[in-house]
This record gives sequence, structure tokens and C-alpha cells, in this order.
Amino acid sequence: MNRQELISQIKKKQSFLCVGLDTDIKKIPAHLLELADPIFEFNKQIIDSTKDLCVAYKPNIAFYESMGVSGWNSLQKTLDYIPNDIFTIADAKRGDIGNTSNMYARAFFENMNFNAVTVAPYMGEDSVRPFLEFENKWAIVLGLTSNKGGLDFQKIEDRNGKQLFKQVLETSQTWGTIKNMMYVVGATRAEQLSEIRVIIPNHFLLVPGVGVQGGSIQDVAKYGMNSDCGLLVNSSRGIIYPGNGTDFAEKARIEAQKLQQEMAVILAEAGI
Amino acid sequence: MNRQELISQIKKKQSFLCVGLDTDIKKIPAHLLELADPIFEFNKQIIDSTKDLCVAYKPNIAFYESMGVSGWNSLQKTLDYIPNDIFTIADAKRGDIGNTSNMYARAFFENMNFNAVTVAPYMGEDSVRPFLEFENKWAIVLGLTSNKGGLDFQKIEDRNGKQLFKQVLETSQTWGTIKNMMYVVGATRAEQLSEIRVIIPNHFLLVPGVGVQGGSIQDVAKYGMNSDCGLLVNSSRGIIYPGNGTDFAEKARIEAQKLQQEMAVILAEAGI
Repeated sequence: MNRQELISQIKKKQSFLCVGLDTDIKKIPAHLLELADPIFEFNKQIIDSTKDLCVAYKPNIAFYESMGVSGWNSLQKTLDYIPNDIFTIADAKRGDIGNTSNMYARAFFENMNFNAVTVAPYMGEDSVRPFLEFENKWAIVLGLTSNKGGLDFQKIEDRNGKQLFKQVLETSQTWGTIKNMMYVVGATRAEQLSEIRVIIPNHFLLVPGVGVQGGSIQDVAKYGMNSDCGLLVNSSRGIIYPGNGTDFAEKARIEAQKLQQEMAVILAEAGI
Repeated sequence: MNRQELISQIKKKQSFLCVGLDTDIKKIPAHLLELADPIFEFNKQIIDSTKDLCVAYKPNIAFYESMGVSGWNSLQKTLDYIPNDIFTIADAKRGDIGNTSNMYARAFFENMNFNAVTVAPYMGEDSVRPFLEFENKWAIVLGLTSNKGGLDFQKIEDRNGKQLFKQVLETSQTWGTIKNMMYVVGATRAEQLSEIRVIIPNHFLLVPGVGVQGGSIQDVAKYGMNSDCGLLVNSSRGIIYPGNGTDFAEKARIEAQKLQQEMAVILAEAGI
């Protein structure tokens, strides 16, 4: 999916919601466990009940990988089930030397058909570039993460007082374009989005941390939105786990709808 | 495998060689492609011909992941085939927020039974700690990598002139012990190993970059060895791809033997 198509979907659905599919066999409703593929069945019902409200799905690859081959099968079936007009993100945090990153890119862009992969920046340019060499595919590079450990290294200041994550944004944006790169920026530090927008005014930002992790959509939009919207706000646990009975998908829809309605107001106010 | 068992293996085999299984379907001998699982068949023959010469195998997970479910099956069969007294490293460069890193740890330590996983440090403490909570399992944290992009961020100096990778070593070593953490340090910058040893004198170092990437074992040992050896030196392409015929495993053995013999001399000189 290209940038223009993504923006069109945001306008059409009046939503910049990404639903995180952090599907955990230990957390899904018990009645699904009798089925042949409980993980896929859960995702299928979540997708059916939220696909008109969101513009992206983001399977958290660790959750599938932890189940081995059966997990990868569930992931493939989930990806195949997502409608083509919805953006798909493999949240995988991959990154290695060039020939190895190329293999990861092939894993998610060729063997599977994701639109985007999240990528860790520590190993630098040749670890990210292989993800930028596929048409209409995206690398989503970690900028500032919302977890506690994000403070350990990302805010270290260099001799000029520039924090590491800002150096990462400045340097890495030269490797690609706004048409094949996005950045992960945690919502729990929404006020910093305005500083980030000084460096990367036009890139899309994938913003996790809304909901369970404490961020608010209003703050994210206030500090981070640009004239194309430029945001994908992710909620995982807050959407997929409010219910634990046979009506879990309806409960997920209610949560997704709350977020989408908030987003619709914000987009309308911004004239998008 | 615990630290003492690893050191015992190094002494017994007079080797600190790690063989990297970067097994690429496009590079393995053509005659294997007729078999049901060419990737496993290649690895099996490499293991048979090198297992008395090395103390560790390091499958590069990207290469298996790029092949989807069949790749994961080949990986599992390969892991099962490696003798129990050889250390196994999932070179996966994983790392995410705590609950997600926990899933990655379960993927490699429980669903599969690797001894160690390589981990990226950008997301800080809670992204690494979940890998340290399994008995006799290891996290191998990226310190200084040997690729060109390793220079992009890892050598940024803070206000006190301390380079990022040194900050990573200093901070992260407090999260675990020398019994459950190692570090990745590229061999193409062997002289820096002495600076690294000032910070982490006792940890094992996993050193890629010998051979194709240009590093030398003598330099690595000169600057990086400690009284327990404290090194695992990896060679991937240099060992597994010198041959392309039916005798490929014999050629791999010849290359592995050259490295092991060099190591035996170094260990003997050091009295290990």
C-alpha cells in the first residue's frame, strides 16, 4: 500500500486507528480453545468486528513466534484474512547486517505479504536499507519507545546536547523517503511529538502506548498530527481483551469505536 | 548450558569456534535441492563434519524465517540434531517491551530449546531482562557490531566523551551476570576489545566478523581473551560455503579445522 492510499483510507474511515493483534493463547476466551486454530479464530472475529473502524492491523510477531510453526500458520491465515485496503504491520523489531536484514525483509514482504515491518536502528544504515528496497513496502524505524527502558539509552545526550533518538531520526530519514519510512514514537511522551515533528514533519508516526500504557489520543494529535494526518495510533490490549466471553468481539468493537469516534472528531476539526 | 560447562568444552576441544549456520537455499549445493528438506540436509552434513571442532552453532534466524513454516521446521530439526554438549545460539537480534520480549524468550528457550539468543539493546532494560529469567539460558546483547552501519550510532559520544556502545555495556551488565549474559563485539575492530575488556573483563564475547568480514583470530585473542578464554569466535560463510559439490562438508571441515588449530595454539599459549 502506498502513502496516498493510506491517507485515502484515513479520510474515508475517519480513523487513524491501528489494532494491535497481540494474541495470547493464555488470554483469549476459553470457548475458542476447543477449535483447531484458536489464535486465528480469535483474530478473525476481532477483524470482522473492527475492520470498518481501523486503517491498520499490527500483529505482534513475538506472540506468534512463541508458538512455533502453529503460530506462524495462525499468523499467515490472519494476514490472508485482513482486507487488502487495510495496512498491515509486522511488529517484529528486526534489524541485522545487510545480507541478514535482506532475509528478514523477504520473510515479511515476500514469503508473507505485509505492508510494513518495524525495525530497530542500533546497527545503522545497512541494517535498515534492505527493508526500503521493496515497492510500496515500508520500514517503521524505532525512534522513541514508550517503555521504561526507552529511557536507558534513547535519551543519552551527545556533546551538543542532542538526544540519541533525535540523532536516529535525523540520520535515518536520509536513508529513505516519506513514502517508505515511518517511525515508532511512544504515546506516553506525547509532548515530545512536537520536538519530533521539527525533525520529521512529514513522516507517518506509528504511536503505541495509547490505552493500557497511558497515552491519550488528543495529546498525540495535538502534538503529532500533520496535514496528511501522519499518524497511526495503535491500541492492542485495550481493544482485544476487554471481553472474555462469547461476546468478546462485540466488546472489542465497542472499544475500537470509542477510539475511532474520538479520531473522527479530531480529523474533522483538522479538516482532514 | 551453564558457564562452567561451556568453559569445559572449550578446554576439552581446544576450540572457541562458533559455526554460523547462515544457510541460504540459493547458496547450498545443487544436489541437495532434490531432497525433502535441503536446508536441514545441508546443516546436518555441516554439523557431522564440524561438531568435534567447534563449541557452538549459531543459526542465523533470518535465513530460516525468510522461508516461512518450512524454514522453521528446518531450524527445529537442525537444533534437535546438534549434540547436547554444544552451545546453541539463536542469532535473532530480538528485543521489545517486556511482555513481548518475554514471548520472544519463550519462543527460543521454551518452544525451541536454544541456549542463547542475541538481543538488541535500543529499548533498554525491560527489553532484555525477560531473556535473563530462564535457568542456564543466555542473552547475548549487541555491543559493538562489525557492519558499516555500526558506526552510525554506536560510537556517538555523550557529554563526557563516552561512546554509546560503552554506555550500553556499562549499563546492561548490571541487569544480569557473567553467567547469563554475553556481548556481541565485532572482530573487524579487534583493537577495541581491550577497551571493552576494561568495562566487562569477565563476560563471554561473541565475536562475528572473522573471515569474510576481515577480522583475525590472533587479534581477537590478543585483545579480547580472558583467563576463562571468554570468547566465542564465529565464522559463517567462511566455513559453510567454500565447497559447492558433493564434498561441501569435507571442505567445511577443512576450514573449521584451520580455525580450530589456530585456536588450539592460542589456548595452549595462554595455558587454558
